[in-house]
Amino acid sequence: MAAAPRIGDLPAGPRDAITDVAGVAVGHCTLADGAVQTGVTMLLPHAGDLFMQKVPAGVAVVNGFGKSTGLVQVQELGVLESPIALTNTFAVGTVATALVRSAVVAQPEIGRRLPTVNALVFECNDGHLNDLQAFAVTETHALEALAAAHTTFAQGAVGAGRGMSCFGLKGGIGSASRLARTPVDTFTVGALVLANFGRPAALTLAGRRIGPVLAQRLADAAAALAAAPERGSIIMLIATDAPLDARQLRRIAVRAGAGLARTGSDFGHGSGDIALAFSTAYCVPQNGAGRLQTIALLHESLLDPLFEATAQATEQAIVNALFAAESVTGRDGHRRSALTELAPDWQALMQSAF
Amino acid sequence: MAAAPRIGDLPAGPRDAITDVAGVAVGHCTLADGAVQTGVTMLLPHAGDLFMQKVPAGVAVVNGFGKSTGLVQVQELGVLESPIALTNTFAVGTVATALVRSAVVAQPEIGRRLPTVNALVFECNDGHLNDLQAFAVTETHALEALAAAHTTFAQGAVGAGRGMSCFGLKGGIGSASRLARTPVDTFTVGALVLANFGRPAALTLAGRRIGPVLAQRLADAAAALAAAPERGSIIMLIATDAPLDARQLRRIAVRAGAGLARTGSDFGHGSGDIALAFSTAYCVPQNGAGRLQTIALLHESLLDPLFEATAQATEQAIVNALFAAESVTGRDGHRRSALTELAPDWQALMQSAF
Amino acid sequence: MAAAPRIGDLPAGPRDAITDVAGVAVGHCTLADGAVQTGVTMLLPHAGDLFMQKVPAGVAVVNGFGKSTGLVQVQELGVLESPIALTNTFAVGTVATALVRSAVVAQPEIGRRLPTVNALVFECNDGHLNDLQAFAVTETHALEALAAAHTTFAQGAVGAGRGMSCFGLKGGIGSASRLARTPVDTFTVGALVLANFGRPAALTLAGRRIGPVLAQRLADAAAALAAAPERGSIIMLIATDAPLDARQLRRIAVRAGAGLARTGSDFGHGSGDIALAFSTAYCVPQNGAGRLQTIALLHESLLDPLFEATAQATEQAIVNALFAAESVTGRDGHRRSALTELAPDWQALMQSAF
Amino acid sequence: MAAAPRIGDLPAGPRDAITDVAGVAVGHCTLADGAVQTGVTMLLPHAGDLFMQKVPAGVAVVNGFGKSTGLVQVQELGVLESPIALTNTFAVGTVATALVRSAVVAQPEIGRRLPTVNALVFECNDGHLNDLQAFAVTETHALEALAAAHTTFAQGAVGAGRGMSCFGLKGGIGSASRLARTPVDTFTVGALVLANFGRPAALTLAGRRIGPVLAQRLADAAAALAAAPERGSIIMLIATDAPLDARQLRRIAVRAGAGLARTGSDFGHGSGDIALAFSTAYCVPQNGAGRLQTIALLHESLLDPLFEATAQATEQAIVNALFAAESVTGRDGHRRSALTELAPDWQALMQSAF
Repeated sequence: MAAAPRIGDLPAGPRDAITDVAGVAVGHCTLADGAVQTGVTMLLPHAGDLFMQKVPAGVAVVNGFGKSTGLVQVQELGVLESPIALTNTFAVGTVATALVRSAVVAQPEIGRRLPTVNALVFECNDGHLNDLQAFAVTETHALEALAAAHTTFAQGAVGAGRGMSCFGLKGGIGSASRLARTPVDTFTVGALVLANFGRPAALTLAGRRIGPVLAQRLADAAAALAAAPERGSIIMLIATDAPLDARQLRRIAVRAGAGLARTGSDFGHGSGDIALAFSTAYCVPQNGAGRLQTIALLHESLLDPLFEATAQATEQAIVNALFAAESVTGRDGHRRSALTELAPDWQALMQSAF
Repeated sequence: MAAAPRIGDLPAGPRDAITDVAGVAVGHCTLADGAVQTGVTMLLPHAGDLFMQKVPAGVAVVNGFGKSTGLVQVQELGVLESPIALTNTFAVGTVATALVRSAVVAQPEIGRRLPTVNALVFECNDGHLNDLQAFAVTETHALEALAAAHTTFAQGAVGAGRGMSCFGLKGGIGSASRLARTPVDTFTVGALVLANFGRPAALTLAGRRIGPVLAQRLADAAAALAAAPERGSIIMLIATDAPLDARQLRRIAVRAGAGLARTGSDFGHGSGDIALAFSTAYCVPQNGAGRLQTIALLHESLLDPLFEATAQATEQAIVNALFAAESVTGRDGHRRSALTELAPDWQALMQSAF
Repeated sequence: MAAAPRIGDLPAGPRDAITDVAGVAVGHCTLADGAVQTGVTMLLPHAGDLFMQKVPAGVAVVNGFGKSTGLVQVQELGVLESPIALTNTFAVGTVATALVRSAVVAQPEIGRRLPTVNALVFECNDGHLNDLQAFAVTETHALEALAAAHTTFAQGAVGAGRGMSCFGLKGGIGSASRLARTPVDTFTVGALVLANFGRPAALTLAGRRIGPVLAQRLADAAAALAAAPERGSIIMLIATDAPLDARQLRRIAVRAGAGLARTGSDFGHGSGDIALAFSTAYCVPQNGAGRLQTIALLHESLLDPLFEATAQATEQAIVNALFAAESVTGRDGHRRSALTELAPDWQALMQSAF
Repeated sequence: MAAAPRIGDLPAGPRDAITDVAGVAVGHCTLADGAVQTGVTMLLPHAGDLFMQKVPAGVAVVNGFGKSTGLVQVQELGVLESPIALTNTFAVGTVATALVRSAVVAQPEIGRRLPTVNALVFECNDGHLNDLQAFAVTETHALEALAAAHTTFAQGAVGAGRGMSCFGLKGGIGSASRLARTPVDTFTVGALVLANFGRPAALTLAGRRIGPVLAQRLADAAAALAAAPERGSIIMLIATDAPLDARQLRRIAVRAGAGLARTGSDFGHGSGDIALAFSTAYCVPQNGAGRLQTIALLHESLLDPLFEATAQATEQAIVNALFAAESVTGRDGHRRSALTELAPDWQALMQSAF
């Protein structure tokens, strides 16, 4: 991956990726064959049984033009209890079923003595490059992505990111991390995005709006759609080892939107812009009714460094997605160029941007 | 169906069902074979292409312990654009995929030139009677329910209601309607519920709490679970021909919760209690960008009769579900008795209730 | 106060009032002079400095036709940091200023080295009996209500309840409590309401709808307004000693709506129906940034007894308000009769209610 | 006012101010005397009686650490019915009372035959420069601001902006407008902000982060607080002549947050960041119960140009506040420097910013 512009001044973790948050793993299953350019990405908040050891989480729906499933329960109960899946819009049902089936294998009493499981699946519309109507993603693909989960993972046109577009360019999976220093401790904030949003002319790298030049080049290349509506969506997943509760994590998720805005997004009407933040600092057990659960939480007044880290990590993750993605040709010969292919002179463009 | 107690004093429509709202149709596909006691119910707000002619809608999540899909977009955009499906918890993904595929058949440009479609699927957990882990519901079942949609439809242990339990008794599908008189016009409010909630001891019919007696009988019959937590959920769909916008329809949906409370529900922790209200008075076109859309709306100060009708219709629909449902034996010999079987003396019980 | 009908089967605390939750105190300042029939009621969650030791809290806006102040911050931060004030609609500003000034006296650095304070003031419209335009409530009255706070307090036509109407009858302040048994411990849930809502015909006591008879008597008495819209509002304050966080307390607050619905309310359009729940189990300190705060919380699956207690205590509190209130004549000779005056035969009416 | 950097590429209206939206007027009352550096700003959506002719509106609470009043009802009913007031945190109650009294003068039946009025008052904490505890703002000041409302109005350290700080510099009132071209028509979007937020090091002008240099200069000047938490708040008012309903206006308000983020805000914990958007395209009458109200609305798919205009106008309004504000010395000799005083070389700083 080309060296991407550096966002902000907070230090990154060793991987500059969401897996800098200990316990988090990410896996992909990529489908890249002619008109089928899609896939599944799975994020595991920890390596254990997520249903039995739930993870505190909060959600921010910046723009709800989206078909994600599982958010209602996260918003009510403040926990997630399945891996977090990313995929294309038409595959949400299939991937959700795969997550349910997978949870039942681990806990055969789910749906019997135990309650049912809340499968969390996010999506973006990759229909420009990918033949959505092929319904190519199967439950097996979802399981393969799960099995591939690791602290090291690819970015760009992989997994659920395979067919995604961003600012008229090739988008996809991006990740980054930032360290947040508080009087109590230094915490890690990691972001992973599925980036599939943005009008070409709006693209802004580290504050430099290079979009108009790129839009012109796209128009010249008749790759166009330069004037197309901001359609697509972005999913922003935020992990932290800071000890926060669900209410605080919702506040964290809101700040992902600040990072998103700085890349040039106006939260377009047709873009499902959704953020979810979770903490790995403690778990909420499925069975814990016999006693009080003691948790240690960060004082509200210490959240600012985490907010700043969230915004920076999110913006960096989007930029990383653009720089990691290779050009892809898919359905009906549609093509999305990598940023570095269309703009090998991006550094010069940034210098001269108004 | 046994004559059920009459709720409230507002007049009902001719069918006392949600299909009293002109254009609304309901269809079931019922699976009843040994351990498989489940199904799909489909509600069509109108007979046309819902994607091209969307329906204004609002949502109230009374208690979000639920796995429904499609709500995020309805809350943002204020319209629904697919049939409304009801099914068991593990079948949400499959039924959502069926709705997507069905929409694509009608509009082959969905996911290509047109955006993707937001499939709206609600669920309750029928795992006590039904073997959820059989994953018995297929896309074909969903399509069969769609094809069966009609203004006349069965209530009780049918469709998605086949395996549902309510107050420790057999629950399922119930419906009712009420007429709301305003200075402008008289409007119809229809309710359809998938009733799968309630502690036995809490059951309250028209204000008479007969639950304690029933709970005792259930305990004696070792059918028990009298002390079981309120788990299960209820989905409450409200239709009206009153001309309302999405914000007003959310207010309507909130009032379904008033009807629910009067049956004895405390909105139990494990019960996903969700209401959606839609209006058939006008449509929002998919393509309408070239001009302003003129709509005529009811003044806010005239909503009270509609609120009252909503609460009464919802309460009546729940009662109707209980009186319409036959006894069912399913997974592992689990059995849920019809209310009229366990309490043929329900009228006497109501008289003597404290 | 006349013996009121008993709601539900959960045991009440020793006072059957919100002050059964240890630490809670309530004080009134009542203005009753001709056309001025109004006042202020203050609820103190604990006896200490609320700004320095904040109280976890959650809010449910059942119907937001209301002018309360302070809710935005409670919803974001999950704590309250001032006494909770109840008053008439036009007095919100004055009472809020009194709370700010009072907090500054206690902590002179508020608005200097310390942040500002979030004054929490709820209101109902007592304009039928009270001359709102007299702006009779002063900051001094607010301070008098604060100074009067005690575990023993009057109910009915007192404090903020002085001029309130409920179901066409005299309403006002009501309170009740219920004990909630969980495997961990037995907790107390207390409710205090400012009841100023309801169409006469809808009044329902313990499930018996006696409203139509009362509405007829009101009409005969030309005291009328029997057909008036449900205008007014109800504020429902819920206290508990159960250790819950803000998210859980919001869930508690939602259940106050279930109790409200059972009295006959459809959450009328013009009725600001708002519930706030707080826990006395722990405090969130203003200054705590140096270390993590350890709190012990109840497991989510144990909330059901608290939900049931909340609904019952709220319904009982409303009923108690009606039975405690004396008849009041106010502005322009407007009169609201006590329930027991208009219906000394209320027990017979309940027996014969459909 | 110094020429400020130009944000974005959309054209501005003739005044580059919120009053480019026809009918909107803004008035100030400024208090500047020693330790009292504060005031009131009033925005009138139209020149008529706002209670009788309400204005559709939507709210986005980006960060709810704020004490504004009136939002609950706007969120429920989707209209505003009073002028929009801005002031300091401790003056909210007084200014709200002034608005109520003013509405009663215009409509003497408010609180009698008519419902009460929802006063809408926003606030920021100007306690660094202003002696909040002086409670200097009176009802008369609020009325003076109302009386001063005009299409031409001052920006910077005036009205409610008198004592506000922004990025450690002098903040206050800023305004801007942008034209949004849609296939139906070209609409105007205007923004007015009360800017009182931001860490000095985060200040970003048109994408160039010049904050670190300014923070160093502030530190050198011992004017300091460079490391102070982001405390304060920003109120963002958005006006448009586009015909939108309350749901759409909430979506508009959300986009104000995108503009805010681009100036360097991470929506700090202690910053009450609240946006309200309203449309002047039509009114909702207080009395309209006798017939349906016909309104013509913009199709959802045409919102993108308005979103872009909102983000740009908001960012520009914040920048304008910084460039318009003069240096102010207030309480205890506290001083906030104008940006142009601390950084007369701001253009060079922008060139060299990383």
